[in-house]
Order: sequence, then structure tokens, then C-alpha cells
Amino acid sequence: MMATKHILIVPGDGIGQEVTAVGKKVLDKIAAKFGHTFTYDEALIGHVAIEATGVPLPDESLEKMRKSDAVLFGAVGHPKYDNDPSAKVRPEQGLLKMRKELGLYANLRPIKLFDELLGASSIKPEILKGADILFFRELTGDIYFGEKGRKNNGDTAFDIAEYSRFEVERIARKAFEAARTRRKKLCSVDKANVIETSRLWREVIQKIAPEYPDVEVEHQFVDATAMLLIKDPRRFDVVVTANLFGDILTDEASQIAGSMGMLASASVGDGTGVYEPIHGSAHDITGKGVANPLASILSAALLLDISFGMKAESEAVIAAVDKVLKEGWRTRDIADAATPADKILGTDRIGEEVL
Amino acid sequence: MMATKHILIVPGDGIGQEVTAVGKKVLDKIAAKFGHTFTYDEALIGHVAIEATGVPLPDESLEKMRKSDAVLFGAVGHPKYDNDPSAKVRPEQGLLKMRKELGLYANLRPIKLFDELLGASSIKPEILKGADILFFRELTGDIYFGEKGRKNNGDTAFDIAEYSRFEVERIARKAFEAARTRRKKLCSVDKANVIETSRLWREVIQKIAPEYPDVEVEHQFVDATAMLLIKDPRRFDVVVTANLFGDILTDEASQIAGSMGMLASASVGDGTGVYEPIHGSAHDITGKGVANPLASILSAALLLDISFGMKAESEAVIAAVDKVLKEGWRTRDIADAATPADKILGTDRIGEEVL
Ligand SMILES: CC(C)[C@H](C(=O)O)[C@@H](O)C(=O)O
Ligand SMILES: CC(C)[C@H](C(=O)O)[C@@H](O)C(=O)O
Repeated sequence: MMATKHILIVPGDGIGQEVTAVGKKVLDKIAAKFGHTFTYDEALIGHVAIEATGVPLPDESLEKMRKSDAVLFGAVGHPKYDNDPSAKVRPEQGLLKMRKELGLYANLRPIKLFDELLGASSIKPEILKGADILFFRELTGDIYFGEKGRKNNGDTAFDIAEYSRFEVERIARKAFEAARTRRKKLCSVDKANVIETSRLWREVIQKIAPEYPDVEVEHQFVDATAMLLIKDPRRFDVVVTANLFGDILTDEASQIAGSMGMLASASVGDGTGVYEPIHGSAHDITGKGVANPLASILSAALLLDISFGMKAESEAVIAAVDKVLKEGWRTRDIADAATPADKILGTDRIGEEVL
Repeated sequence: MMATKHILIVPGDGIGQEVTAVGKKVLDKIAAKFGHTFTYDEALIGHVAIEATGVPLPDESLEKMRKSDAVLFGAVGHPKYDNDPSAKVRPEQGLLKMRKELGLYANLRPIKLFDELLGASSIKPEILKGADILFFRELTGDIYFGEKGRKNNGDTAFDIAEYSRFEVERIARKAFEAARTRRKKLCSVDKANVIETSRLWREVIQKIAPEYPDVEVEHQFVDATAMLLIKDPRRFDVVVTANLFGDILTDEASQIAGSMGMLASASVGDGTGVYEPIHGSAHDITGKGVANPLASILSAALLLDISFGMKAESEAVIAAVDKVLKEGWRTRDIADAATPADKILGTDRIGEEVL
């Protein structure tokens, strides 16, 4: 079935520009190969949006997102703001606003190791082999979106973390349903021994668990999980957790896949889905042409699968990435001591191999 | 110089009881060997305190802590409460109250790998070799101690994270001073791109950094740090961070040392210092006699060093642990595939080897 879809490309900052350009080319190639019509537009977010318009997410960008069938997103961030804690306008506000305004409450982060990269991780191959985790990170609540500010003449800072029952329930249901299609194990991560939002979180999971009797549920504390992910990653199947814990744990888990440069994510919810690498804007390597575009390419694969229901197309992309890795091609971040220098490619060249 | 000191033993719950008993024996042995007089008392905390008195930290325990020269502590926690998010009285409240009441704002967690355990970690030996990190986790602020509760008929939960300038400054100064005596690198970890308490945190670090011109300071986001700890642990020297981030990152970093069963911590501040393993009550192995007591023994070493200024005594304990490991003795958690079965000892037996 040939389809017509409108895709919005939102490269954002730093290497976001470089890798998203490659992701888009892969979408183009899929359209040509499978006879679809993909039309594109671009929109600004982050530091580049601030420079151009004064705000990190212009209304025009948001409108374009709402009207598109899916968004391929890059990254936001700039060291300038990180070193100025008092900056009022920040690139990240654009990202958070996009998540909130589009109702992207579920962030799926699949952690799957390509066999060829077993050696690229700092974790031992025998610990990693076969690890396959699907994270569901809640994305529109928690300490990210609660009230925050200063008191006592600026000498005290505060952030409010908040969760309501329905927010936990809707992401939990997505996680339970995904677990059903996989190894039927769900690990819910919280800090219920200290935090009230975590106690509500655990209550909700316990309450709906009986509706999924085929799924085995366990509860872990976030500190223990941070340890277990490294010690024994294979014990996890689907993991569901709050926004902040998910942020930390998925970056950590990226080491299971060898590099952050390999990890794609899908943010879905009420409307248009947004697909993006989990890595950031990486200004230290921006403009050098060495960024790994495979996470953006794999984000395109998730986009095809989840937003367009194009399974074969999605699998074709993943198979192409797999083949490129099997042929020995690497970007710098996923090369290891045994990789010959002439097999290490830059952003565009490895993109061409995938194409 | 012979000294007389009063030490309070607070075993708490689960394996806390088993490992603290061994830690105490080691203190006894040191007293005998170096001609000190150590007197002891015991106090209740956690689930055992709730069972005996109805509260997780009886006033009597707190009084005893205040009056002692140092506290050797075990762990608190019980699965019963974890599976009941609505429990009003919980073992962990005793721990948090102890930290707050004794003003234990700085939690030192040294992550150092004994060479003999290089193989026990799930991280590759070549990545680990030489890793040596000293964490300073803030321990009396953050989301742990802010107001928390429910609204909307219990359907919304909230937790307030809070930090004041002086709280950040006092722990930061301890971390800067420690960095001076080590490799002169300080990494401050926050989430300043999203969280206001983190922005205050970063401001304070930036403000006092010029007073320590010999210390090289870097700021990292907590998500990136969770990744870097695994990817390249040797890049860190001293790490300073907030309570919640420290909780997560130090458990994760325990994998650098091969096992949580090896990691000791010191909580210090305004008065009596408290020394404890970073592992928890581990009810799954309680009573089986297999818990690793080395973290409690190494906590005793920290106690001797930090609270009593007994460097030689502390080093004697560490040397004994090192020797036991060199001789090939292991507990289950730090054994690897190559460990002969007859070298794997239980809690008391490995304790005797150290003695
Ligand atoms: C850039 C930052 C605000 C963001 C987050 O914390 O959510 C990023 O780390 C991510 O994981 O997408
Ligand atoms: C038991 C729990 C409340 C505690 C904490 O979170 O501080 C523990 O994990 C620790 O690290 O000492």
C-alpha cells in the first residue's frame, strides 16, 4: 500500500543538524524504494530558534509539528547556557514545551545490542550478549514540569515533582501492553521508600497489574536498578519509570548498546509522534563530520513503524544498519581497538553505506 | 597514643545485623592490637525498632548516637513496607531522621577497586584498572527532606526538592578540600538544564571554585554522568552531587568495585560520624550467613580514620582485607567463574580471615 505522509524535520542544535540530515535521506530512500510519497518541511527549536526568533520553540514550529504526520527531531542544547545558571531563556525549554504541547507522555527507548558491537561496550560481552530492554520513560510530568523557583532572596531554590494517577496509568498501560508482545516481564522503577510521587506510582502499577495476569511485574528502587543494569542487563525486559529516573537510567543503559550514538527513541502520546536519538547536541564534536548518524537512522525506523505502521520499511532500515555493521563499517564512537583505521567513517559516509 | 573511645553499634535490619557484628569484631581486634580502649553500646533503628518500640528511630537511640564518639551502622529496610505504598511508618524514616538530627550532611563514598577483584566486575578490566573515585553525596537536603504529600483526594502526589546556598557550599568545600589531597579534579553533577535546585547548585560551585585554583572543576549533567561512569570511570577523581543523584550514581558506581558488598561510606557533618556499608538490608539473603561483611569492615576502617584520626589503624584494616583477597578468599558476590568452590566463604568465616 502506497501512502502519502508529511514529515517535519527538526534538527535543532549541534550534531542534531548533521545526523538528522542523514536520517532524512534514509526516509527518502525508503519512500522511493517502497513507492510512498513523503513530503517534508523544516522547523526550528532550541538554540538555533533562540538565535533566529528569541524563543526556543516558536509557535510556527509547534503549528508545523501539529500538522505533520511525524517529526524527526535532532537534539537541543548549547554550552553557553550550561555555564550560565541564571539564563532565563534556554534551548531545553523548547524541547520540554514540545513534549508538553504535543502530549508526548510516553518515551520509548529500546536498548538493543547489535551483535557486531558486542566488543564496543565497556561491559563484558558475556554479560551483554542477548540483552534487549525496552524503556518506557514518562515524559510530561515529574520534577521537569512542576513549579520551580527561588525563595529567601534567591538563596533557596525549589522544584516540585508531581504525578497524578492518570499520568502513571496511561504510561503503565503502554508498558504492560508492550511487555505482552515481548518476554512478558515488566520492571517498574521508583524510589517508593522515600518519595511520595513514587508511592503513588507503585500504587497505580499494583492496582492495574491484575488486568495483565500474563505479565510478571517487579518493583525496583532506582538506585538498585542503576546497579542491576550493569551487573545483569539481561534480567530486564520492559522497564517503566518516571521522567527523571528514565532520563538517568536510559543514558546509563546506552552503554549496553555500545554507544549513545546507536540509540533511537520514540515519543508518543496524544498526537503527532516525535522520533529522536537519545544523544544530545554534543557541541564538542559539532561540525567535525564525525557524529554517528545511526541513532537518527534508527529513529527514522521507529517513525516508520510506530507512526506510519510500516513494518517492512522499518525492518529494511534496521537490516541496512545491521549489514553496514556486519561489513565492518564503524563511526569513531563504536570502533574498538580491533577496528582497522580505513573502516572508520564520518557521518555522511556511513550514511551512504546505509543508503 | 592510646585512646579511649565509645562506639555505638546500630545494626538495623536484615543483613545489617550479620555484617555489623563482624565490623565490630574488627574494631575490637584493632583496640587490642594498638592498645586502645573501645567501649560499645547498641541501639535500634529501622524495622527492628518499629517492632520493638513502634517508631523507626526511638529517642533513646538518638541520644546514644549523640553521646558516642562514632556510630557503626548496618542497614534499614523491609520488603513488607515496600509492597505497601500506603504505610505511614517505615524503616527508612529512621535512617533519614538520624541523618537530619545528627547533621550528617556529607556522605563520602570511596569507590576503589581492589586489584584482586578486577575480574569480579561486569565492566571490562582494562576500563576499570586504576579507577579511584571519591563521591561526596549531600545527605540532608533535596527531595528527601522537602515537603511531600497528596492533593486532589489522594489522586496527585507531590515532593518538593529544596536546596539553600549554605547547604551546597558546605558540602562543596569538603569536596574541594578532598580533591586537593588527591588528583585535584572535581566533577560537580547536576541537572542544571532543567532543575532550579541544580542551577543554584552550579552557581555555588562556580562561585567558590576560584578559591581552589589548584582544583580543576567540571560540571556534568546527571544523565551524562550515569553513562560516563561506565564508559570511562578513570576520568573521575572527586565527584560532588545532590542527595538523590548521589544515591543513584553511587549504587551504579558500586559495579566499578565489583560488588556493593565491598563499599563503605562515611556520613559526617556537625557531630558524631556514622559509618555504614552502602548496600541495603538485602532480605533475600538475610539469615543465610552468606552476606559479604567487607563493606562493614571497611566502614570500620573509615571510622578509625575519619572520626578517630587513627590512620595506621585504618590502614591495618584495609591491608588485612587486601591480604585476604590476595589469598584468594571470596564471598559469593565477589567470586567469579575462576574462583574454586573451597575459596568461597560465608560472612563469619571471611571475617575470621580478616581478623
Ligand atoms: C536535554 C534534556 C532536557 C533532555 C531531558 O532531560 O529530558 C535530554 O537529556 C533527554 O533525555 O532527552
Ligand atoms: C534506604 C534508603 C532510604 C537510602 C537512601 O536512599 O538514602 C539508601 O538507598 C542509601 O543510599 O543509604
